[in-house]
Amino acid sequence: MSRFQPHVYARNNRRRFLSELKEFVRFPSVSAQPAHASDVKRCAEWLANHLRGVGLEHARVIETPRHPIVCADWLRAPGRPTVLVYGHYDVQPPEPLNEWRTPPFEPTVRGEDIYGRGACDDKGQLFAHVKAIESFMRTLGRLPVNVKCVFEGEEEVGSPNLKPFVSRHARALGADAVVVSDTRMLGPGRPAITYGLRGALSLEIEVEGAPHDLHSGNFGGSILNPVQALCRLVASLQDRDGRVLVPCFYERVRRWPEREREYMRRVGPTDAEILRNAGVTRGWGERGFTLYERTTVRPSLGVTGITGGYQGKGGKSIVPARASAKIDIRLVPDQEPAEIERLFREHVCRVAPRGLKVNVSSNFRTKPALVDRTHPAMRAAVAAYQKGFGVSPVFVRSGGSIPVVNEFQEALGAPVVLMGFALPDDRIHAPNEKFHLPNFYRGVETCVWFLQEAARQIPVNTRRLERATQTQHV
Amino acid sequence: MSRFQPHVYARNNRRRFLSELKEFVRFPSVSAQPAHASDVKRCAEWLANHLRGVGLEHARVIETPRHPIVCADWLRAPGRPTVLVYGHYDVQPPEPLNEWRTPPFEPTVRGEDIYGRGACDDKGQLFAHVKAIESFMRTLGRLPVNVKCVFEGEEEVGSPNLKPFVSRHARALGADAVVVSDTRMLGPGRPAITYGLRGALSLEIEVEGAPHDLHSGNFGGSILNPVQALCRLVASLQDRDGRVLVPCFYERVRRWPEREREYMRRVGPTDAEILRNAGVTRGWGERGFTLYERTTVRPSLGVTGITGGYQGKGGKSIVPARASAKIDIRLVPDQEPAEIERLFREHVCRVAPRGLKVNVSSNFRTKPALVDRTHPAMRAAVAAYQKGFGVSPVFVRSGGSIPVVNEFQEALGAPVVLMGFALPDDRIHAPNEKFHLPNFYRGVETCVWFLQEAARQIPVNTRRLERATQTQHV
Repeated sequence: MSRFQPHVYARNNRRRFLSELKEFVRFPSVSAQPAHASDVKRCAEWLANHLRGVGLEHARVIETPRHPIVCADWLRAPGRPTVLVYGHYDVQPPEPLNEWRTPPFEPTVRGEDIYGRGACDDKGQLFAHVKAIESFMRTLGRLPVNVKCVFEGEEEVGSPNLKPFVSRHARALGADAVVVSDTRMLGPGRPAITYGLRGALSLEIEVEGAPHDLHSGNFGGSILNPVQALCRLVASLQDRDGRVLVPCFYERVRRWPEREREYMRRVGPTDAEILRNAGVTRGWGERGFTLYERTTVRPSLGVTGITGGYQGKGGKSIVPARASAKIDIRLVPDQEPAEIERLFREHVCRVAPRGLKVNVSSNFRTKPALVDRTHPAMRAAVAAYQKGFGVSPVFVRSGGSIPVVNEFQEALGAPVVLMGFALPDDRIHAPNEKFHLPNFYRGVETCVWFLQEAARQIPVNTRRLERATQTQHV
Repeated sequence: MSRFQPHVYARNNRRRFLSELKEFVRFPSVSAQPAHASDVKRCAEWLANHLRGVGLEHARVIETPRHPIVCADWLRAPGRPTVLVYGHYDVQPPEPLNEWRTPPFEPTVRGEDIYGRGACDDKGQLFAHVKAIESFMRTLGRLPVNVKCVFEGEEEVGSPNLKPFVSRHARALGADAVVVSDTRMLGPGRPAITYGLRGALSLEIEVEGAPHDLHSGNFGGSILNPVQALCRLVASLQDRDGRVLVPCFYERVRRWPEREREYMRRVGPTDAEILRNAGVTRGWGERGFTLYERTTVRPSLGVTGITGGYQGKGGKSIVPARASAKIDIRLVPDQEPAEIERLFREHVCRVAPRGLKVNVSSNFRTKPALVDRTHPAMRAAVAAYQKGFGVSPVFVRSGGSIPVVNEFQEALGAPVVLMGFALPDDRIHAPNEKFHLPNFYRGVETCVWFLQEAARQIPVNTRRLERATQTQHV
């Protein structure tokens, strides 16, 4: 095969791709933590430069009220379909730092994996597309389709600015398909296309008692302890099996026909696989559903962090002044985040004890999403995986959330293809996050083939082109 | 009055006493935190030097497996009673640091108060006795009684080494009365002698799930979240009114006759006073008891700290790997700390969910204590308060614990006098701890008068002297 073929180029440049990925992972672009705002920005600038370097045009950093969006495009394939590539360069907080074998922002290769916060979610996966684009530009000098890249810095905080950006610039962002690599395969050599995502609602409960800590000997037993009140409140949210006790919580949860459940049982991960990936021996959750169902077609409610009172070594004899918990609710069709938030707040009001100040605040809301499995863009993705990984992908649901997927579907009217390269044990969001290097390299090739197949299979939406009479840039 | 009278000397040297107290408070002698071990030691050495300076003999720092004990004595009053002065130079952790108006270990005077961790609990109160001793030595060149000082560095962690030290050296420490200033008055100008202390049991519950955090989208709803399990566990410990649900918890709780309860209602703080001191508007706790009773003759169970998962700003989408809570149980006669710990562990075993590792560890145990209100040493204390504060003290119970009080009673067979100078709003154990300077100064004078009155009123236990045929030093 000629080295002027993009996938051969991709194969020949793996070492350089890896060292560039390391550069990318080195930025501590933690979107949730205000202290890292300037790191997020520096990362955006690096990425925009890099896009320019691989031959994309109009590469730019677009400021938002919080973290910037990086855009670039290449629109020199008239008559060909347009693919919007979405990804995010922000990452989850790296804490707890002491559990990392090597520091989160010093990417390190051990065995066949690269370790670092964001290596997999989503810098590595985003980068697979960038390197695929490079592979075309450096060999053929052109892409087989028109491409628009939209890479954001706020996915991990619910995409508060990208969502309005997409609807505001729906025409300029118009595409015949959107491709996103931010999901999981079933295992090494077992690629998967995700067709369902859960929504998310990130809330925080704060409970306040006395204006300052009090001596627990002198006051213990006479005033309500905010930590204990918070524990009762958290306990009131669910029964022993995790069924949510917030009234009307399940009212809009869609019931899937037996055919769909049967398909999920056949294709999706087994209970044993999910437990192995989690590293635990015992499952838990709503009766009557498999673990795969519990994490995909059933909503869940979890505490992602709790804090109150003394955090140090040994004891401290106090009645703490306050306590707080971070709540992560995952939603499924047809639950509405705003409605669930209202129900949650009403429940908290009802059960909160008198004499304490209880406050619920909201970090972000994401709607659940389902994508069309029958669109030609899916066929392009299937063919791409077959060539990139040598096997056909299966269709699975994910329990995760990608905030902007709904927006792409609704504002752009475009099908979304969720073509992920993460492994279930890549420890995304956890210490020692890693990206499996064979998946990175095959991911680049799969993205090469996807662009190739997209050119063949995805029809051009001419009505869209009529609406966007001239090439608009955001 | 002649300036050669001890109480006049005390009055004339207030300014210097205050600047020395500041030196004392400057040591971050936080016994619970291993990182401060050397500060505790430096503080002990400073204190031993200081005792030597005021004219005490045999001043020395006695090493223990953890933090040292500081001893000194003056035994040149043959035929006179012997008073053991106990206090502690260790302090509670200062956290949360951001709530201090001035740094905890930079003692600062604002208005009539000195602010700093330990200013009141117990450095300021301990120092009142030291300055009283100095006032005698510098004016009369002698004390009216024999004095043994025992100042420890582990009170805030349950006196693990002082308790065996006292029983091992019971003869050498033998005294006709023990005086401790580590309790509260009812308010400014309202002195009080404490006659009951609660016991304490400091425990920690740890709950562990997966070996590391997991993505809450991918795993939420399929495995048990340790934070939620911990919240349920904490909620299971009590009913809504704080009544402890651990089986047999109340079995040995002493019921007091109506006469005693009536006395408490007449003499002790009202509900309104306790709420005002706490800075809250609403009380809470076991039905059928006043707030004063709930904090003194009834046991209590509180969470002093809880932690799990993400502690930073914003959200993080994880199922945390672990969570833990610090539990503070206050005990009353005739509850036994070891038995209550066993009952607690049994309860946790019973309610802990399967599939998680749940561990209970114990920080310290302290028995509840009652002292004899009729002993002549009490009369000496009453007279001392009358001269020092110009009013008679009342007898109250405290909800706090002083671990070694039981040991003094049992091993030494000596009456213990709890003669405190703290105010209910001194924020001991909390940020912005303070000591009311008028109480410090009057405290010194009250300690002067106590030594004087002790010489007159406390009988010498001749049997004790026979047992200790020669002056023994520890």
